[in-house]
Amino acid sequence: MIKTPVIVINYKVYNTSFGNSALSIAKAAEEVSINTGVNIIVAPPATEIRTLASNVSIPVYAQHVDPVDLGAYTGHIPPEAVKEAGAKGFIINHSERRIRVDEIARLVIKARNLGLNTLVCADTPEVAAALAVLNPDMIAIEPPELIGTGIAVSKAKPEIILSTVSRIRSVNNDVIILTGAGISTPEDVVKALELGTSGVLISSAIMKAKDPKKVINEMAEAVISRK
Amino acid sequence: MIKTPVIVINYKVYNTSFGNSALSIAKAAEEVSINTGVNIIVAPPATEIRTLASNVSIPVYAQHVDPVDLGAYTGHIPPEAVKEAGAKGFIINHSERRIRVDEIARLVIKARNLGLNTLVCADTPEVAAALAVLNPDMIAIEPPELIGTGIAVSKAKPEIILSTVSRIRSVNNDVIILTGAGISTPEDVVKALELGTSGVLISSAIMKAKDPKKVINEMAEAVISRK
Amino acid sequence: MIKTPVIVINYKVYNTSFGNSALSIAKAAEEVSINTGVNIIVAPPATEIRTLASNVSIPVYAQHVDPVDLGAYTGHIPPEAVKEAGAKGFIINHSERRIRVDEIARLVIKARNLGLNTLVCADTPEVAAALAVLNPDMIAIEPPELIGTGIAVSKAKPEIILSTVSRIRSVNNDVIILTGAGISTPEDVVKALELGTSGVLISSAIMKAKDPKKVINEMAEAVISRK
Amino acid sequence: MIKTPVIVINYKVYNTSFGNSALSIAKAAEEVSINTGVNIIVAPPATEIRTLASNVSIPVYAQHVDPVDLGAYTGHIPPEAVKEAGAKGFIINHSERRIRVDEIARLVIKARNLGLNTLVCADTPEVAAALAVLNPDMIAIEPPELIGTGIAVSKAKPEIILSTVSRIRSVNNDVIILTGAGISTPEDVVKALELGTSGVLISSAIMKAKDPKKVINEMAEAVISRK
Repeated sequence: MIKTPVIVINYKVYNTSFGNSALSIAKAAEEVSINTGVNIIVAPPATEIRTLASNVSIPVYAQHVDPVDLGAYTGHIPPEAVKEAGAKGFIINHSERRIRVDEIARLVIKARNLGLNTLVCADTPEVAAALAVLNPDMIAIEPPELIGTGIAVSKAKPEIILSTVSRIRSVNNDVIILTGAGISTPEDVVKALELGTSGVLISSAIMKAKDPKKVINEMAEAVISRK
Repeated sequence: MIKTPVIVINYKVYNTSFGNSALSIAKAAEEVSINTGVNIIVAPPATEIRTLASNVSIPVYAQHVDPVDLGAYTGHIPPEAVKEAGAKGFIINHSERRIRVDEIARLVIKARNLGLNTLVCADTPEVAAALAVLNPDMIAIEPPELIGTGIAVSKAKPEIILSTVSRIRSVNNDVIILTGAGISTPEDVVKALELGTSGVLISSAIMKAKDPKKVINEMAEAVISRK
Repeated sequence: MIKTPVIVINYKVYNTSFGNSALSIAKAAEEVSINTGVNIIVAPPATEIRTLASNVSIPVYAQHVDPVDLGAYTGHIPPEAVKEAGAKGFIINHSERRIRVDEIARLVIKARNLGLNTLVCADTPEVAAALAVLNPDMIAIEPPELIGTGIAVSKAKPEIILSTVSRIRSVNNDVIILTGAGISTPEDVVKALELGTSGVLISSAIMKAKDPKKVINEMAEAVISRK
Repeated sequence: MIKTPVIVINYKVYNTSFGNSALSIAKAAEEVSINTGVNIIVAPPATEIRTLASNVSIPVYAQHVDPVDLGAYTGHIPPEAVKEAGAKGFIINHSERRIRVDEIARLVIKARNLGLNTLVCADTPEVAAALAVLNPDMIAIEPPELIGTGIAVSKAKPEIILSTVSRIRSVNNDVIILTGAGISTPEDVVKALELGTSGVLISSAIMKAKDPKKVINEMAEAVISRK
């Protein structure tokens, strides 16, 4: 079971997403998670998964895996690869790395068989509902036009979140719904929870922060304040 | 400068390509390389690069990188990522992970700027010559129909190797030319060198071997015998 | 409204799919449709749409369109292009031409705005249900492993059809459900209808037939016999 | 043999690229070609090839073909399809529809076998030289950042044209070299010829013109003035 509310930190591939910086952000997330009790997941680049997974106790997710099995697939990353490196789950279909629907379906099933969790991204309420039929563990709604803008979808387009929640719930009662795209402030996090989602998917607000730990802590405090 | 003759071990993503097995094959390759003086390069999955690079002294290459820069590219692996993890170079355009020609061109230039080496794969002599114009460090000719078959291109289609060498040399005098696809025995390696190439790209013959170290050693001995 | 039961003939790009042969198959389909009253749709290659659409009265569909608008998209085929050529609808996500889920969603909406019909293909019951959420006009279930085999899914794997119908109906009451993959005989057609679908998607059984008109007629007669 | 100098009109998929407008621009191009003696090629969308090819005497090219053979390739356009519709050649690898280098190689060979001509696009001088090794009939250099801007590459970056010509000529003496990207005025055409290329690839300047015929005529007159 994935504990909610949850904060997922998508490292993307910024210059802070690697090496010491990657590890130090994960350590900060771990400390905040322990102190506040808020579930925090970190999703570093593939090359950093093993280091993070062996150095922090919070869940590490891959940002993407390829829909292939073990075998002669040079340059691909099968789900088994990230599991072996210590990942507990992976993101699927992020708007910066979209894949086909048959591939999403296969990856969700495969993750289940491997004991890994899945976080599927969708760009519209309609697509979110379609993908909810595939029964991933989590779905994040991320209108691509707001990603990286610092303009939170929960503030700028609350109706998208509301519509996503209602459409998903008409086909799936269990999937955890997250708000992504532009989440930058504690208020954005509170708003995301108020609109009926169970957490947030954050990236640049933390990865580009002068003091990532401070931002993570503020986000977690915002989550607690809501409970 | 890349020392020749060279043996490149493409791990692909077999069940032996990860964790302890990945490391043990790299250690074996390192030992053989030190003992025989033959340049041996290992190319593990992205998730294993850092572990291998920090545990062996021979060069570690990525099997693939994405033609993106650092930034908001969730799930991608920019060249900077594999350099940071300790890679000394990367394979481009393997037949199991082909990319566009403009992307190959950009990656070769970017590798040069980052101080990384490039090994570009081609499926025909004509394509090999075209890609030689882009000045990578190495080009491997790998007829896809022979990959993984155990039927060495150097034995089954020597004319393809000869034609590749002659076509490449008509446009590029410097690039190191390798033979790939089906290389399974020490004889295949000798033949590849006799046909005018400077090394081999091997995968299943080592990754699926009962005793990978023995196979690596035989291959390296075959290389030495030729000198 | 699309009249059911319906037979959709996917021309694919066989040597019979072009020119006089393409037109003569469409003429045959038109005659059978008029004689039997069964709705028959033909889906020729893009280059044949205009000729067929201006020579037969039955609906002509495109086999694929690209998820782009009018503009600077060299080499793409926007929905507007096939409408202008006379198409009344298009196939989306055939297993030989899969696209991403966000693209499927956009194309279904765009088709609706342009007054075109959509037939979305799915490879599994689960994917079919997911895509049903996007409200296309028709969904065809086509297990890829049976396509072109002459082994009808309705005979070999009836449970897949049953599961598809029940999963789709749990999220969408309106979409027309078709059976595809391996449909070769009138019995296959009858079976498809008996299993609860409203028609078939056929290709090689007609396009590779010595006498396509005879096959089309037998299929239509089978449809009528069921009513 | 392709007569030079040559003007290639890439219709793309603007609202003027279809139906009566498509035909009327082709008719205008034909008339100008006959009056001035300048070789003019029109490249309409796939759905318009047959109509144009059966109504004008100048060569009609496809904007793109898929690297597949005849067969079970739903939604693809094999080279045979555009030949059957009347095309005399096709564009490959336009920057808005890039494909892999092995696919380019295969399409150039296939076109030769089918008696069709090829116009391969490249985004940099280096890529142009690489693709020249594959021996297409024509290569167009089109820096993507200038496409559709109205800023002609021949004016803004003449050094790119010069470098392209010299790099291509170091590996291929025969291929016809064209200038693309931003060609808008007769002066741009003259400049393209002065820099050593044998023609131009034009799109928006004609497709978005109030009076396309007038623009085509001015371009052709510019070509003649140079001879």
